[in-house]
Order: sequence, then structure tokens, then C-alpha cells
Amino acid sequence: MHGLEATVHAIIPPDAATRAQARARLDQLTMPHWALGRLMDLAEDLAGITRSLRPPVARRTIITMAADHGVAAAGVSKYPQEVTAQMVYNFVKGGAGINALARVAGARVTVVDMGVAADLSGLAASGHLVSKRVGPGTRNMAEGPAMSRDEAVRSIEAGMELAAELGPSTDLFGTGDMGIGNTTPSSAIVSLLTGSDVEEATGRGTGIDEGQFRHKVEVIRRALTVNRPDPDDALDVLAKVGGFEIGGIAGLILGAAALRRPVLVDGFISTAGALIARGLAPASTGYMIAAHRSCEQGHRLALAHLGKRPLLDLDLRLGEGTGAALAMPLVEAAARLLTDVATFAEAAVSEADR
Amino acid sequence: MHGLEATVHAIIPPDAATRAQARARLDQLTMPHWALGRLMDLAEDLAGITRSLRPPVARRTIITMAADHGVAAAGVSKYPQEVTAQMVYNFVKGGAGINALARVAGARVTVVDMGVAADLSGLAASGHLVSKRVGPGTRNMAEGPAMSRDEAVRSIEAGMELAAELGPSTDLFGTGDMGIGNTTPSSAIVSLLTGSDVEEATGRGTGIDEGQFRHKVEVIRRALTVNRPDPDDALDVLAKVGGFEIGGIAGLILGAAALRRPVLVDGFISTAGALIARGLAPASTGYMIAAHRSCEQGHRLALAHLGKRPLLDLDLRLGEGTGAALAMPLVEAAARLLTDVATFAEAAVSEADR
Repeated sequence: MHGLEATVHAIIPPDAATRAQARARLDQLTMPHWALGRLMDLAEDLAGITRSLRPPVARRTIITMAADHGVAAAGVSKYPQEVTAQMVYNFVKGGAGINALARVAGARVTVVDMGVAADLSGLAASGHLVSKRVGPGTRNMAEGPAMSRDEAVRSIEAGMELAAELGPSTDLFGTGDMGIGNTTPSSAIVSLLTGSDVEEATGRGTGIDEGQFRHKVEVIRRALTVNRPDPDDALDVLAKVGGFEIGGIAGLILGAAALRRPVLVDGFISTAGALIARGLAPASTGYMIAAHRSCEQGHRLALAHLGKRPLLDLDLRLGEGTGAALAMPLVEAAARLLTDVATFAEAAVSEADR
Repeated sequence: MHGLEATVHAIIPPDAATRAQARARLDQLTMPHWALGRLMDLAEDLAGITRSLRPPVARRTIITMAADHGVAAAGVSKYPQEVTAQMVYNFVKGGAGINALARVAGARVTVVDMGVAADLSGLAASGHLVSKRVGPGTRNMAEGPAMSRDEAVRSIEAGMELAAELGPSTDLFGTGDMGIGNTTPSSAIVSLLTGSDVEEATGRGTGIDEGQFRHKVEVIRRALTVNRPDPDDALDVLAKVGGFEIGGIAGLILGAAALRRPVLVDGFISTAGALIARGLAPASTGYMIAAHRSCEQGHRLALAHLGKRPLLDLDLRLGEGTGAALAMPLVEAAARLLTDVATFAEAAVSEADR
């Protein structure tokens, strides 16, 4: 557990002094006080995260992590498991939603095999995909632990390695996921780590009906009964009811926090990963930017638990990092408030007279 | 009234057949059905607006219209009137909020003098500003009509001319405003055209306190009593309680609709202009995209009246076109869903199995 512990220990909160300096400048910009609202809050956050009044955000990477889930065998999704691998090919060919939206964001997409139940070694060999495989998908959490504690550590450390490997070429990270069935482990994690009832933390995923929803809730309840995860031990939660890509996302967030870089947390699955990251290193929350609020009802609970208000609310429920990509221009806009806007004194504009 | 009438008559609703074709493709994209939510609704809208399954949105212009308001003499703002002209200089020098955010959006900013109470002819002569001056600011609406009916027509026609002049180099328009005191006429317009009480349609503008707010409401009530605008006649409303930039924004929207181009409607003042546009040509609403919901409480009423759900909700209250700029990447993202994302068949991905 050396890599994980070392990274966790490197994480300290964003810098209060740089935040204060940023606020002092934002207070003086040629506009009514704080008239760009939450964009100005974000500018202050970016200054604290990066320890800079000119937060760099130009080099953007979205890391889309794919993995399969044994619980898919319990019939919790509308799609067959082979779609996970098919979508990996779609990402690599550039034809998925995340590819389109990353182009708008000026971001590159790094596709990662965290444990897809298919042989993707050809894609890895040709450099189209980064392989951080922990195994050929998790086991069915409704029948026993999804993974061992050692596998949970390895999934998190894989995410940390990605942050370290991409760090030299990345100012702004974005998380992303692909994995048929992965709203089910995410709901289990959100239920456990926010102390909410399973039903409140569970949504319709890719679009299941009422009967399928009842079944999904029942599968999650069974997984919690069978495995008894300890909600005070995020690693135990990840091992018992998690997924390899969820561990990878947690590790990526922790790695970004250790590097003092901002990380846009995508949708419901990514936010489950963020809860695991928070469990391991509470100070990591200061480096997370919530990209959007998805349709999944548990997402609201998870964001509230992290104390995050998302930037966007567009009824998205795709994952892949699409919400993170859409939010990237807003992060650039926030950074530019610090660098591109004149103060009243600089522009010789009269201030408020009362 | 020839120019205005000709443009209004050229406006027909977006094309239902192209919308349907767009929907048919969006239904087949490699993602759970409609998983990018409101971005997909917007893609459908763009297809209908542009009559194209590849809606062009690359060339973007934000038109920031500045004017002064006689009602500023009634003490409705925290800022002195000379700030309008000072901010025009700030726009031209590139140091304002809109300049920073337009850079993120890849948009150019066209600054327009619609009637600032200062001599800006030097800026116009050097090509830094487009002059469409209707007069040196409106008159105080609390004492009589803000402008004549002829001036109201001229302000709208100026906006139509801008749309026509910029049309050959613009795929996507964004509205913007600057004018000390201009939330006051906007609240009067919103109250009249939505049938709401003045108090419900009035907000805190640049940040006035409770006593100043009471005074502002009283000033608007007096303007309505003195002028008796006819809520069924948008031109009468604009003349009695409007502003030159608000008329210009209405005209720009109508001009964009006549050209069948999408137009991002910025904040509260722009939405007041959109209500005037709707009053003159109801079909123009099909070309409007609501960029954001501002802090001004009347904005919510105005958007509901237009039947629009805004893309962003970031506690903005600046105007200038800043919300329109922030929303431009979302419009590009929506357009790319139609052009950049593969269908299930194209990508050989399995569809939902139930």
C-alpha cells in the first residue's frame, strides 16, 4: 500500500493565502461586485488549487476508464456486457459522445482499460489505449465481494499512476467512465458513504423500467447484506461493492490533488469515485470541481455530501467524461477572469457611488 | 416602418421536417436513448433553425449594445451614468468581462453605440465601434415616454441592420447590453409583457439595498401610471418604458430569425428585448436560445413567458453578453452531436436488449 499511502499523505488543502489574493483582485474587476457569480467562486478555487493568480488550464486531459462488473449478470442494465468493449473501440475510433465533446473542450481523451471482460491487448499494443487492467471485470457483488482488498488498492494506485504519467502534460484533468452495469456499484457506494437508503441512492441508469428498478434496488440490498461493507473504511466499500474504474477514478482524483491540479468530476459514477477519494483523503475535495448534476437521483445526494454545487444541469446521464468536457470551457472562463479583466483603476471606470 | 415590417414578415418558424430528421439520427447515436439530455434537445433545435443536419456554428459574434437611460436620473442604480461610456472604452480596449469570455467562446465582440450620453464619434471613426445612435440616451420614463414611437422603430431597425450586416460572417449570434439603469426599463417591460406585478418583475440590479429597491419599484409604477403602455402593442411598450439597446436587441433577434440563424439571448436586459421581439413576431422565439438564468428575479418570469429553459444557471448578473459567450461552447457541442457521433450501426455497438 506504499503508493497509495504516499499519495494520500502528499495531499494538503488548497492554499488560503492565494485564494485571498485572488479574491482581492476579483473584488476590483470592472463589473458590479461579484457579478459573474459562481464563475468568480471558481476563479478563487482555481487560484487556491494551483497556488497561482494565473491558474494554468490550457492543457486538458479527460481520462475515460472502462471496466466490467460481475453484477451485470444479475440483470441490472438494459445493455449486454459486450457493449463495454464495443464502446472502447468506439472511443478509440473517435466516434463516441466523449470524442465529440472533448473536441469542443480542446481536450485529449485517454482511454484506459481498468478491467474490461474482453481482450483489448491489441489496442494497448498499438498505443490507442492505456492498459491498467486489474482483472477481467469484478465478481458479482450480490454473491460476495466484487474484488479483494488488494485489487481495490491496485485499482486506486492505477489511477494515481495515470495522474503522475499525464501530469507533465496536463493542467486540468477530467474523469470519465464506461462500464455496463456501473450505476449499480455506484449506488451501493453512494448509499454507504452518504448514509442514505439504497432506494434513494438508486436511479434508472441507462433507462430501466419500474420493475427493473425494483430488481436493481433488491440486488444492491442483497450485496450490502452479503458483504457488510464498513462505511468508515472507503477501501472496504470499494472492494466489497465497487468497480475497477471507480477505484481508478478515486486514484486519479487523489493523484491530481497531490499534484495540486484541478480535476473535473464527471457524473454519477465519477462522483462515487470522488466519495471513495474523500474517504481516503478528505483534503482531496478541495481539488474537485463538480462538472454537472445528472439525472441519476443518487447524484444529488453524493454532491451534497461532497459539499459541491455542480456547474451544469443539463439532464445528462451518459458518463464517459462528457459532463467534464462540457464544463472545461467554464473553467477556462473562470481562469481568464483573473488574467484578462481590468480592474476599475486599470480601466479608469468609476466605482459604485454609495 | 418598411424595414421592420419586411423583416417581421420574413420570419417563419424553424423547419419541422429537418427537426424530425435530426431526431431520427440522434435516436440512433451510440449512447443510451437521449443520454445527453438537453444537449440533444438543442441539437434538434439547431437543425430546425438552420434547416441543416450539419448546423454551422463556427463563426460567432456577440453584439454588445450600449445606451443610456433618462430614468438613471431617478436614482435607480448604484453607478453614475458616465460608467456606460467608460465601459464602452473598456470593451474597445478588450478589458471587460465580455472580452475575456468571448475569447473562450471563439467569438468576436461587436460594440454598438445605440445611444450613449457621451460623444463616442472618435471610436466610431476609428472602426472600434459601430454607431447606430438613436439619440443621446432616452428620456426619464417616470416623467413621460422614454422615446417616441419613431425612435422605437429606429432602434429595432438598427438591430435588424446589424443582423444583416454581420450575417455574411456570422453563424451564431449572441446578444449583449450595457447601460447604467437598464434593469429598470427591463423590469417595466417584463411586468407589462408577462402580466406580472412590478415588484415580482424587479430585482436588485447592480446590488441596491432594500430602500433603493422600494424606490426602484416605485419609479417603475410611476412610469406605468404616467405612460399607460399598451401591453398588446410591443412597440408602444418599448417606446414608453424601453431603452435604445433593448430595441436594438429585439431587432437583432428578429434579424437573426429572418436569416434563420440561432441567437443566444444573454441575461435579463436581453430577455426583455426578446419579449419585445416575440410581441412583434411570435415565430421569432423558435430562433432564440436562452443562455442562462440570472439573479434578477424577473428573469425567471420572462424566460417562462418565452417558454425557454436556460442552459446555464451560474448566478450571473453582469450582462454585456457574458452569459451568451459562456453558452456558445454548449451550442457547438450540440451541433457536434449531429456530425461527430457514430450511430449503433456505424460503430457496430449492440443496442439495448429489451
